[in-house]
Amino acid sequence: MQDLDVNDITDAVIAQMATTPDPRLRQIMEAAVRHLHAFAREVELTPDEWLKGIAFLTAVGQMCSPVRQEFILLSDVLGLSRLVNVMHDSTGREAAGTETSLLGPFFREQAPEIALGESIARVSSGPEIVLYGQVKDAAGKGVGGAWVDVWQTDADGLYDLQAHSPDVMDMRARLRCDAEGRFQFRTLKPLGYSIPMDGPVGELVRRQARHGFRPAHIHILVAAPGYRELVTALYFGDDAHVDSDTVFGVSKSLVVTAQDNLPDAPVPGMPSVRYDFTLSRETEGGGGRVGSDPSKLVPASG
Amino acid sequence: MQDLDVNDITDAVIAQMATTPDPRLRQIMEAAVRHLHAFAREVELTPDEWLKGIAFLTAVGQMCSPVRQEFILLSDVLGLSRLVNVMHDSTGREAAGTETSLLGPFFREQAPEIALGESIARVSSGPEIVLYGQVKDAAGKGVGGAWVDVWQTDADGLYDLQAHSPDVMDMRARLRCDAEGRFQFRTLKPLGYSIPMDGPVGELVRRQARHGFRPAHIHILVAAPGYRELVTALYFGDDAHVDSDTVFGVSKSLVVTAQDNLPDAPVPGMPSVRYDFTLSRETEGGGGRVGSDPSKLVPASG
Ligand SMILES: [Fe+2]
Ligand SMILES: [Fe+2]
Repeated sequence: MQDLDVNDITDAVIAQMATTPDPRLRQIMEAAVRHLHAFAREVELTPDEWLKGIAFLTAVGQMCSPVRQEFILLSDVLGLSRLVNVMHDSTGREAAGTETSLLGPFFREQAPEIALGESIARVSSGPEIVLYGQVKDAAGKGVGGAWVDVWQTDADGLYDLQAHSPDVMDMRARLRCDAEGRFQFRTLKPLGYSIPMDGPVGELVRRQARHGFRPAHIHILVAAPGYRELVTALYFGDDAHVDSDTVFGVSKSLVVTAQDNLPDAPVPGMPSVRYDFTLSRETEGGGGRVGSDPSKLVPASG
Repeated sequence: MQDLDVNDITDAVIAQMATTPDPRLRQIMEAAVRHLHAFAREVELTPDEWLKGIAFLTAVGQMCSPVRQEFILLSDVLGLSRLVNVMHDSTGREAAGTETSLLGPFFREQAPEIALGESIARVSSGPEIVLYGQVKDAAGKGVGGAWVDVWQTDADGLYDLQAHSPDVMDMRARLRCDAEGRFQFRTLKPLGYSIPMDGPVGELVRRQARHGFRPAHIHILVAAPGYRELVTALYFGDDAHVDSDTVFGVSKSLVVTAQDNLPDAPVPGMPSVRYDFTLSRETEGGGGRVGSDPSKLVPASG
């Protein structure tokens, strides 16, 4: 029998997990245990602090529901989601693709389909803008028939899941590009907003004296057969928080401004954003989204 | 605005958390982020794997209830609870104290009080043993009036919370030592048992091809004014899993055997375990348990 000191406890755990048949699971859990233990040793975690951590993680889990994913939010505010995104962008695809950004906790599958040029605002109202552009491949050729999912907050800075009952879908839509990959839709100018502050992640962010805001943005998911699914977002450069996003989602290349007199604007006189998305071909197995429809992540009874 | 690569994302998160007023919270969260990111970079965590991790942690949180603490169980099977215990033992107390062991997820406050010599078995039955001994201080002097909490599985290897409705307390009791710190109680010889395998932690342990068993043991919590609360357990040396405890709770000094002919056995002819517990005085602020009554760790609505 081993008498374990603070260092060889780690080896003992790894030894007991060495029977794991799946080599990738074994590798991940070994690294998780090493880093978890190194963290506890570095800060000399006390029993009281350990218990607070247990209570915190429990509260995060209990806050999750079919319409809310508090663990994704935690991953977001700790920069983990961004890190996984950046690593994913840099592997297994052509280099030329549009940068990705966080899916976030508010994506929903089966958003209502709209025709090109229609508005994604079904319930909400406010000042309108147009977003248009083209979905291209790495060579600059249009990807005809690509699907675009778009979702954002309403004029009050709330997603439909926050503002309405779960059966209402608003400020989100799916649309299909034309034969040259072109798309256009009308929407409301989004507002920057605070992440949900009424749960344990919000309490953490408050205790860290962080502002908790995301700059105004529009989420975009582009998919076409043969290409890596592109999960990204466009951020508005005139937002006060564009340099201090609480969830670290902003990249320079994703910052846009609504302009009044773009020569090819599809709705003359309406403030417009033109953005072209470049899809990458997968160069190896991969794919996957840093995020999910929250309803897929809790047990049906949750 | 920063364009963050896989390394400076970590610095950006730490910079945003630098406003944290509480220096200990700042230190803990900085270390947590560094180790979390280092883990993700080391294994090159993919979006799919990240999402599986989110779903796993969500399921762990959703499994928690007033009678079940799945996050403590996760901490246990990853050796974190043991590590925190060992660090706690080595700081802020006299060196002479009895080694601690895991509180585990089945401690409950307000167990029924029994008189010295009575049995902790109220509902269950099976072969009886006696546990007796003395609670002492570091100088070997008895600690009169110390409180002893004891809890264990029944003869089927189940805790009351697993075998009965939540209002039943069985195989657990509180008793008070006499003026010399002596205690004795009757109980059933405990069975080794599997950790709960019907939740996400059990699924992980199964996928790691670990047996999932704890060797037979009796949990003990000893408390007296002026001393650090002692949370420990006694393990039976004849159990097949005494060298491979799934939650890494066993120490050599905590292994016992029930014997038939101890000269000072309080119930002649009944298999007996004598164990003396040594309480430590705190040498600095500290205390705290590596564990909690699970009903304290979930929201009332949980
Ligand atoms: Fe968002
Ligand atoms: Fe136990």
